[in-house]
Amino acid sequence: MAYIEPKVLKGFRDFLPNAEIIRRNLTEKIENTFREFGFVPIDTPAMEYAEILLGKGGGETEKQIYRFKDNGERDVALRFDLTVPFARFVALHRNDLLFPFKRYHIGKVWRGENTQRGRYREFTQCDFDIIGSDSPISDFEILLLIRTTLLNLGLDITIHVNHRGLFNRFLSFIGQRDNSVEILRTVDKLSKVGKDETLKSLSLLTGGDNANKILEFIGAKGTFTDVLNRIIELSGGTSPESDRLLAIKDYMNICVNNGTTNENNKTEPFILNPSITRGLDYYTGIVFETFLTELPDIGSICSGGRYDNLAELYSKDKNSISGVGSSIGLDRMLAALETLGKLPAANTCSIAIACINAEKSGEYHSLALQLRQAGIPCEVFIEPCGEKNLVKQFVLAEKKGLRFVIVTGENPLKDPITLRDLSTRSNIEISSIGELIKKLTEELFKETKKV
Amino acid sequence: MAYIEPKVLKGFRDFLPNAEIIRRNLTEKIENTFREFGFVPIDTPAMEYAEILLGKGGGETEKQIYRFKDNGERDVALRFDLTVPFARFVALHRNDLLFPFKRYHIGKVWRGENTQRGRYREFTQCDFDIIGSDSPISDFEILLLIRTTLLNLGLDITIHVNHRGLFNRFLSFIGQRDNSVEILRTVDKLSKVGKDETLKSLSLLTGGDNANKILEFIGAKGTFTDVLNRIIELSGGTSPESDRLLAIKDYMNICVNNGTTNENNKTEPFILNPSITRGLDYYTGIVFETFLTELPDIGSICSGGRYDNLAELYSKDKNSISGVGSSIGLDRMLAALETLGKLPAANTCSIAIACINAEKSGEYHSLALQLRQAGIPCEVFIEPCGEKNLVKQFVLAEKKGLRFVIVTGENPLKDPITLRDLSTRSNIEISSIGELIKKLTEELFKETKKV
Repeated sequence: MAYIEPKVLKGFRDFLPNAEIIRRNLTEKIENTFREFGFVPIDTPAMEYAEILLGKGGGETEKQIYRFKDNGERDVALRFDLTVPFARFVALHRNDLLFPFKRYHIGKVWRGENTQRGRYREFTQCDFDIIGSDSPISDFEILLLIRTTLLNLGLDITIHVNHRGLFNRFLSFIGQRDNSVEILRTVDKLSKVGKDETLKSLSLLTGGDNANKILEFIGAKGTFTDVLNRIIELSGGTSPESDRLLAIKDYMNICVNNGTTNENNKTEPFILNPSITRGLDYYTGIVFETFLTELPDIGSICSGGRYDNLAELYSKDKNSISGVGSSIGLDRMLAALETLGKLPAANTCSIAIACINAEKSGEYHSLALQLRQAGIPCEVFIEPCGEKNLVKQFVLAEKKGLRFVIVTGENPLKDPITLRDLSTRSNIEISSIGELIKKLTEELFKETKKV
Repeated sequence: MAYIEPKVLKGFRDFLPNAEIIRRNLTEKIENTFREFGFVPIDTPAMEYAEILLGKGGGETEKQIYRFKDNGERDVALRFDLTVPFARFVALHRNDLLFPFKRYHIGKVWRGENTQRGRYREFTQCDFDIIGSDSPISDFEILLLIRTTLLNLGLDITIHVNHRGLFNRFLSFIGQRDNSVEILRTVDKLSKVGKDETLKSLSLLTGGDNANKILEFIGAKGTFTDVLNRIIELSGGTSPESDRLLAIKDYMNICVNNGTTNENNKTEPFILNPSITRGLDYYTGIVFETFLTELPDIGSICSGGRYDNLAELYSKDKNSISGVGSSIGLDRMLAALETLGKLPAANTCSIAIACINAEKSGEYHSLALQLRQAGIPCEVFIEPCGEKNLVKQFVLAEKKGLRFVIVTGENPLKDPITLRDLSTRSNIEISSIGELIKKLTEELFKETKKV
């Protein structure tokens, strides 16, 4: 028989059970919050016409995309993000969608990235957007959804918000609007190259006085209100952009303080950070990044912003559909949850019924069905150990990360039962199946409460 | 601005929210049963080395697989099933797995099929297996899991079971073992071409007397015990294969009848059907197919069997890993559930808070957070309608398939609330948020109970 070496492609991953259970628990929790907010899921094909996925084209994308000819000689490619397919989806189905449309999409994407940078070539994206509404209410709802989703995962976060238009308005006010692309690019590197270096680069671009103002603008610190007032002043007065930020902040404060504008509340739901620009992305309105209070250095775990006319490229309909959306970095979040010891518990089934005598497997499984009907997940061991080697099954259960092993008597459905608690290495004697269900329900409930 | 026509590739599908919610509810329910049995999920890459996926090669696979050169000129392909990646996975990780290993895998696969036959080129497979055990107990557990999974979906089913080895033993007994491939191929077409035609073909192959015996063997009808006894007789006596079938049946009877071998129970958990052969598949032990009692004609919705040495092709380790596994046809099952009116309900969020005055959106969302904390999913409308146009929001809610609209007063968190029930077009007056939560919890619980 031939032999083929079993290996996976570089940048691709197998997920073994423990890792996969954690990933699924995490996405399930995230999805539950999305659903509670009335966001609905969609899905799109992994493969599309290359022309559609490449859209306007662009260097990096073109280099990284998996593109090939299918068996019918069509020029196809694998999706490299969920944004482009969403734009195509909206253009194709706009008559079947109800606007404002609140959707989420969790799915795999593929990029032929350089894996030396620690990137994966196959990874899962998690996007959520509200499209078809220009209202600051939808900006606010996306921010509230980010906050609620991450709080529900037990994470302390700070959301940094900014408005792209405000910076442009400020640049116009100081006569530097024409340099905005270069200025954005320079400012975007601030945290990497440091203040002095940035000031030097900006001075060359805009003159020293303006460079100082720019750094003052993007470095403004304090409460949301303080920062907003400062940048309004630097921009020559209020504007539709500053009004929008104020409205978003008021909605949020009222919402999270149960209807009171609790200005003295020290824990503000988010901060205004004029240094957030999201680089040269396609955002046109608010932009935001989300940082973990306990691990700020890993960077933003949830970013996004408002954009114009999502489906423009694929639409003959000239009515634009703008929106606001965000994306959760699941791999980064998993790493963070692991570091913080906040990973959702890996094993949902923590009980096994020992197989002492193979001939009793019908009874063992009958007992298991009764437990499951009472809401208690339960596996049944297959390989018989004999009464004298019970310890083998305890060892197997421990390796599997289980907590309890049920040891039945000669007549598994009638005789008294011994419940082995592997966490304390103790035995509990149980007289009936009813009592077993009661005991396990108590123990499992206790565990859930602890988590 | 350029225009690119929005379209998806033939054989590929977008899933709009209602369809996607249904798909997710279905897989979630299936997964919950798997988990209750202690089965654990894994995942593997969508893309692998073509050499690995093609394995032994084979005509159909080679024609249908999406195969191409990646950016590093590697010969890669998209997975066309979950079985081959599982074999490679087990070979690669066998030292990290605990055997018997009970796993499930739900994931997309891609085949460049001829779409004229109504097949999709991208579809989801749902596989579950127990590997590393030769025991009839694991055969029985897979059958029990199929039964429980489908009962939990509210489906009435019959599982048809057979053993491939028994047919071979019978063929040996009548001196036709050397013709087995041709005989299997002929017998497999029985339901398509009819009995007369099959008898004619078999007579040419084996002689008339044997042809009649073969048809008697595969056509044996009656209770499990009746059929088993008949085919034992036709095969010249009991055998390890007939003993195994008997053991599986006994385990199942004892399990589903709470410890009694209820031989007089008319509804047997499964039937022995010697005509089930699963064609020329790689199965070597039991084989089975599952039919819906109400829709037998759509064919098997869950099939599988026992196989030898899963990971052989990718292993230098000569200790074989045999197993038993099955696959649920999700697309076929969805179609069946739709026909039977048993689809899981499409909308999990059935409540909206009306947006009467945009300025109150902070309060609306505060109310929504309180409802969600009480376990009530709830969306908040974004576009304000004004007090006089409330009907617009009712219409939108109806289009979205929602049941209730919450209409708040001037002070949304304090004033009395009107709850609009769209199913009866009636209003319910509510005095406080506490009362609203109580009322909605009752109504949602009632709905769940109805389902």
